[in-house]
Amino acid sequence: SLARRCHHRTMDMLDVPFLPFCAFLGTLGLLCVGMVGTWCQHWRGGFSLDGSSRTFNWHPVLMVTGLVVLYGAAALVYRVPYSWSGPKLPWKVLHGSLALGAFVLTVLGLAAVFSFHNSQGTPNMYSLHSWMGLGTVLLFSCQWAAGFGAFLLPWAPAWLRALYKPIHVFFGSTILMLSVASCVSGINEKLFFSLKNGTTAYKLLPAEAVFANTLGLLILVFGVLVVGALARPSWKRPDSNSPDSRQ
Amino acid sequence: SLARRCHHRTMDMLDVPFLPFCAFLGTLGLLCVGMVGTWCQHWRGGFSLDGSSRTFNWHPVLMVTGLVVLYGAAALVYRVPYSWSGPKLPWKVLHGSLALGAFVLTVLGLAAVFSFHNSQGTPNMYSLHSWMGLGTVLLFSCQWAAGFGAFLLPWAPAWLRALYKPIHVFFGSTILMLSVASCVSGINEKLFFSLKNGTTAYKLLPAEAVFANTLGLLILVFGVLVVGALARPSWKRPDSNSPDSRQ
Repeated sequence: SLARRCHHRTMDMLDVPFLPFCAFLGTLGLLCVGMVGTWCQHWRGGFSLDGSSRTFNWHPVLMVTGLVVLYGAAALVYRVPYSWSGPKLPWKVLHGSLALGAFVLTVLGLAAVFSFHNSQGTPNMYSLHSWMGLGTVLLFSCQWAAGFGAFLLPWAPAWLRALYKPIHVFFGSTILMLSVASCVSGINEKLFFSLKNGTTAYKLLPAEAVFANTLGLLILVFGVLVVGALARPSWKRPDSNSPDSRQ
Repeated sequence: SLARRCHHRTMDMLDVPFLPFCAFLGTLGLLCVGMVGTWCQHWRGGFSLDGSSRTFNWHPVLMVTGLVVLYGAAALVYRVPYSWSGPKLPWKVLHGSLALGAFVLTVLGLAAVFSFHNSQGTPNMYSLHSWMGLGTVLLFSCQWAAGFGAFLLPWAPAWLRALYKPIHVFFGSTILMLSVASCVSGINEKLFFSLKNGTTAYKLLPAEAVFANTLGLLILVFGVLVVGALARPSWKRPDSNSPDSRQ
């Protein structure tokens, strides 16, 4: 019918190719990492391991790099069309390795903020940001361990993989949404802490505030694009609803 | 094959029925509304229209009620199986009306915070929370207007509906994620503003902080469940990929 032909034509118009989209997303991710580094280096005094606020500065850099950008790259591995044919194991190893890298950076990011709090005598884990962030990291650790056990260990039965796969996919997107919400609330709270007095008060929107607010919005855009790409039917591997029985 | 049979059996095990899930989600949504009202009434001094912080208190209540809970209800209308047969127009009108109700509450919620800031001489729109929140509301207004124009006005051509529908669906989930991220950063920031001194400092985790942190986590769970329900293939209307040519 005409309506159906129109429908298919308009759908084709919306069908952005995956790899140029990935190049854009990669650029956006690197921009976020560069901006969070610049924020901490240029306005917040740079980096050190002495327990001062310069130790804290590793926290936003490691979280944006690990829990958002590298995590997003890991999540998108099976959307690369080359992964749809040939042996699956190398792609599984790549997915698991990128996720493990993201997890290591995340744990170092937690270590940075706990070490800063402990050396300043500030209590840990009181703000909503910290509850949400630690919850996200705990979910991520369960996700990695369960994914490793179900999909990389050779003895997991096919029924277990089939049962767990949609759960793993659901939590994959969920954890990224929570990461992004954690980052945004953390940037917001850090700006209220840091920009208190005089001409650089947050409410006067000094250059640092505009820069870090923009960083927060770019992190949101990155997260929305990754979650959207994961949900897009035409970018899923064609057999994604069939059981995963190959190693 | 055995693997495929296993796959289908395990998929059935995961197939929660939609209506009990909705009852749970409705309870969770009402709990969020009740908790944000209780927070403002019990700890933040209640409600008024005099430009004081009691005027501000309408802001979190209206945003959680409108931009999260009522918005979530509007988003899920087409997942109700009764909507899949018979005339579509009543369901469109219900979807549009719930979204309009959510939008009206949201605009009132913005009015509350602007009126509070203006009467206190505080600048508007400087924090990342405010940028993200206003961006979310602007996206929501475009989403409502474009949805009304494309799906409810009778003269929109079928090709336009087909072109716009996946965009509307994508932004439907995106706006909810942004709403939830806005709420969480707003609760976090409000607790830092309000709980500053003495024995009720935020970092000492007084009862109010535990209560409002828990509210923030419940809002996150609500948002994740709605976005997950929207993405779930077995809960989509069976003809959801065909063109929308019926009124």
